[in-house]
Amino acid sequence: MLFQVEMTVNLPVDMPERAAADIKAKEKAYAQEIQNAGEWRHIWRVAGTYSNLSIFDVKDIDRLHEILSGLPLFPYMAIAVKPLVRHPSSVRADDS
Amino acid sequence: MLFQVEMTVNLPVDMPERAAADIKAKEKAYAQEIQNAGEWRHIWRVAGTYSNLSIFDVKDIDRLHEILSGLPLFPYMAIAVKPLVRHPSSVRADDS
Amino acid sequence: MLFQVEMTVNLPVDMPERAAADIKAKEKAYAQEIQNAGEWRHIWRVAGTYSNLSIFDVKDIDRLHEILSGLPLFPYMAIAVKPLVRHPSSVRADDS
Amino acid sequence: MLFQVEMTVNLPVDMPERAAADIKAKEKAYAQEIQNAGEWRHIWRVAGTYSNLSIFDVKDIDRLHEILSGLPLFPYMAIAVKPLVRHPSSVRADDS
Amino acid sequence: MLFQVEMTVNLPVDMPERAAADIKAKEKAYAQEIQNAGEWRHIWRVAGTYSNLSIFDVKDIDRLHEILSGLPLFPYMAIAVKPLVRHPSSVRADDS
Amino acid sequence: MLFQVEMTVNLPVDMPERAAADIKAKEKAYAQEIQNAGEWRHIWRVAGTYSNLSIFDVKDIDRLHEILSGLPLFPYMAIAVKPLVRHPSSVRADDS
Amino acid sequence: MLFQVEMTVNLPVDMPERAAADIKAKEKAYAQEIQNAGEWRHIWRVAGTYSNLSIFDVKDIDRLHEILSGLPLFPYMAIAVKPLVRHPSSVRADDS
Amino acid sequence: MLFQVEMTVNLPVDMPERAAADIKAKEKAYAQEIQNAGEWRHIWRVAGTYSNLSIFDVKDIDRLHEILSGLPLFPYMAIAVKPLVRHPSSVRADDS
Amino acid sequence: MLFQVEMTVNLPVDMPERAAADIKAKEKAYAQEIQNAGEWRHIWRVAGTYSNLSIFDVKDIDRLHEILSGLPLFPYMAIAVKPLVRHPSSVRADDS
Amino acid sequence: MLFQVEMTVNLPVDMPERAAADIKAKEKAYAQEIQNAGEWRHIWRVAGTYSNLSIFDVKDIDRLHEILSGLPLFPYMAIAVKPLVRHPSSVRADDS
Repeated sequence: MLFQVEMTVNLPVDMPERAAADIKAKEKAYAQEIQNAGEWRHIWRVAGTYSNLSIFDVKDIDRLHEILSGLPLFPYMAIAVKPLVRHPSSVRADDS
Repeated sequence: MLFQVEMTVNLPVDMPERAAADIKAKEKAYAQEIQNAGEWRHIWRVAGTYSNLSIFDVKDIDRLHEILSGLPLFPYMAIAVKPLVRHPSSVRADDS
Repeated sequence: MLFQVEMTVNLPVDMPERAAADIKAKEKAYAQEIQNAGEWRHIWRVAGTYSNLSIFDVKDIDRLHEILSGLPLFPYMAIAVKPLVRHPSSVRADDS
Repeated sequence: MLFQVEMTVNLPVDMPERAAADIKAKEKAYAQEIQNAGEWRHIWRVAGTYSNLSIFDVKDIDRLHEILSGLPLFPYMAIAVKPLVRHPSSVRADDS
Repeated sequence: MLFQVEMTVNLPVDMPERAAADIKAKEKAYAQEIQNAGEWRHIWRVAGTYSNLSIFDVKDIDRLHEILSGLPLFPYMAIAVKPLVRHPSSVRADDS
Repeated sequence: MLFQVEMTVNLPVDMPERAAADIKAKEKAYAQEIQNAGEWRHIWRVAGTYSNLSIFDVKDIDRLHEILSGLPLFPYMAIAVKPLVRHPSSVRADDS
Repeated sequence: MLFQVEMTVNLPVDMPERAAADIKAKEKAYAQEIQNAGEWRHIWRVAGTYSNLSIFDVKDIDRLHEILSGLPLFPYMAIAVKPLVRHPSSVRADDS
Repeated sequence: MLFQVEMTVNLPVDMPERAAADIKAKEKAYAQEIQNAGEWRHIWRVAGTYSNLSIFDVKDIDRLHEILSGLPLFPYMAIAVKPLVRHPSSVRADDS
Repeated sequence: MLFQVEMTVNLPVDMPERAAADIKAKEKAYAQEIQNAGEWRHIWRVAGTYSNLSIFDVKDIDRLHEILSGLPLFPYMAIAVKPLVRHPSSVRADDS
Repeated sequence: MLFQVEMTVNLPVDMPERAAADIKAKEKAYAQEIQNAGEWRHIWRVAGTYSNLSIFDVKDIDRLHEILSGLPLFPYMAIAVKPLVRHPSSVRADDS
């Protein structure tokens, strides 16, 4: 089941560098683990911003929320979720 | 080079069925040709809407505009374009 | 799996009464069939508007899109979809 | 009488963990008490966000405001209220 | 029970004058009947617009929706509804 | 002369309780004095929010601004002002 | 009493030229009459648009509404009204 | 050359009174000097807000920016600029 | 004097092809004449849309409005104008 | 390849002057270096604001993001990116 999720990060500008680096490192490790598990299929950076566009392939909405609310940067994020289905014009059988 | 494009179609509700079917068929053929050429990498339907979310992988912006403005449904579309780059947390080397 | 869907209907004001009555009757029959099947769990009217707020309990997003895009009034609707999960404060085990 | 209420919580990111945990615990107890009283009929989490969608069944608007303004997290909330009525297509007699 | 309702009328500019005059006359008669019944407590024109701001005092939401959806101009209206309660600073016991 | 004014209060969440209580008490006394003078004709609370909807009947705009900018909570408010006139459908001679 | 009014005109693109020219001529005559009466103190065109920014000096809101709703182009206009008062930094005694 | 400029001031609510008074005094002196020079032709307060609506008559855009960016309150302002031209319906030859 | 202007064209979808081709040809000739005169310094197409971003270098606002309101497609356009000045970081002496 | 980028800077009002001056100096040096390299083709100030409108000519999106995310003021910026292509009405062969 596919979802597009756009995440915009707003870190406080006065956050100590050490703390910012730590939380970003945790975020990266967390994201890569889930990508390697196949649930976080794509993650792109929106050019010129501190936002990412991601495609999630998860078994259900609970799992999506579990992943997103577990992001270390979640408290600093504005998140928009769009549920996707295969497009009738897609040449891919499943286009997951 | 990757772009995310969201296309929302607003066909006039009083468009004759025949004309609507024709233009949709042309749109599908056009979209599948470009997908098979590898430039239109993903196309998903946003659930509950007449919008699609697509990922284009094109050589430059001119080509992107050529594809989009050549869509049979282009005159009936609202289009938003976001340029994408590889995300530092992506586990894919290029994340095409 | 739960989704909240808000549907706002904009029928052309010059639509012949007969056609409007027909399409509304089809919409009602369609909606009641799906409610009776248990997938369209709640449908309320937003007071003072021609919008409804609905809660769908479907097996996946494909089914949600199938239901929504199959609505007779779909071409006349603006639709917003929000995926829901059980709230940690809910006293209902599943709150479907 | 039914109302849909969407509540988005914005806790200050620098709120001490102890204080945040306390206020969330109070919020949960408060919400469960009212759910058990039958006035807070449904509460769902909007996936990927710190928002909830709730359906209240209260005797009047005063009671709704009393409940909402009494929420421990009220000072940190953006709240949108939509009054609901039974939909003519609902298969439920009252669709409470 | 009090509601503030803002109604903005968008009559098609090509509506025949006769039809426009008729529907406005019906609207006025309808509105005055409900005002005289005490349910439509205030109606003001927002200066410079074709909108009105009204205060309704009705027994419940069903009645509010019944009144609003029964307005002859309802199909041409954009309507916003805000449920009101007595303000703690009001010097009026009930502020009807 | 009538104006509708919507006032939304955003007190800093870290404002000391004592200071918050003082300023609210001053606000209440100020508002009741002007209500008793007949200029602040109605004040309602928008259910579920920290906003009020008020109807002012003042001799001119200067007086309106004097009242609003003199509110103790003015620095913490977002204010929207709509000038009103008697509606042609009003059954009240003046509905001031 | 001063009001700033911004008026944006949206004439139907298929309005016959003759009808458009007539209504614009009536609008101009109407506007100049009120300017000469001193109530319509300023009217400027917002560069690049079909909008005007005007300053009205009228005895009360009723008169403002009378003028605006009497504009021949009123049915084709989106209008925003802002009540103004003398600014404390103004060097003009009254800044009419 | 005329510009309409709307300036909304957002002073931090925790700014010491002394500092606020000083910067406002500087702002007033600055504004009055430019008014007396004839470049800042009108300044009005938008009733109920901490915004002003101003009409500038300057030789070019550079001068406009020089004035606005030199305002003592500039760092605390949201500013919107609209270039104006004489309206064809204006009875004033130049309506400066 | 520089202005950035964003023009979005909304041609009626049912405009006869001949009429659409004619008006576009006129628009192109008009735009190229003004470019060659040096006043319309840049015109780009916003990829994926029927909008252009242009930089005008004109003697004053009147001339800007004259050019824009003279565009054959003006009645079908939504236009946004931003006055520009040289940026302090520009390496061009005059990049006006 | 051309992009229009609009950057709005929101420096904290309580940033020490020394720190603000330093970061602005770094920003200026950074911007001028890239302008001299030919990638940052135009930079203008939007009159009355702390925003700039820039035209970038870069080899691809990666380079655009590299430049923008490397701006010393990047953490304090809201950025909007629009990909541009040559306009069919442009008199410049390449006004890419």
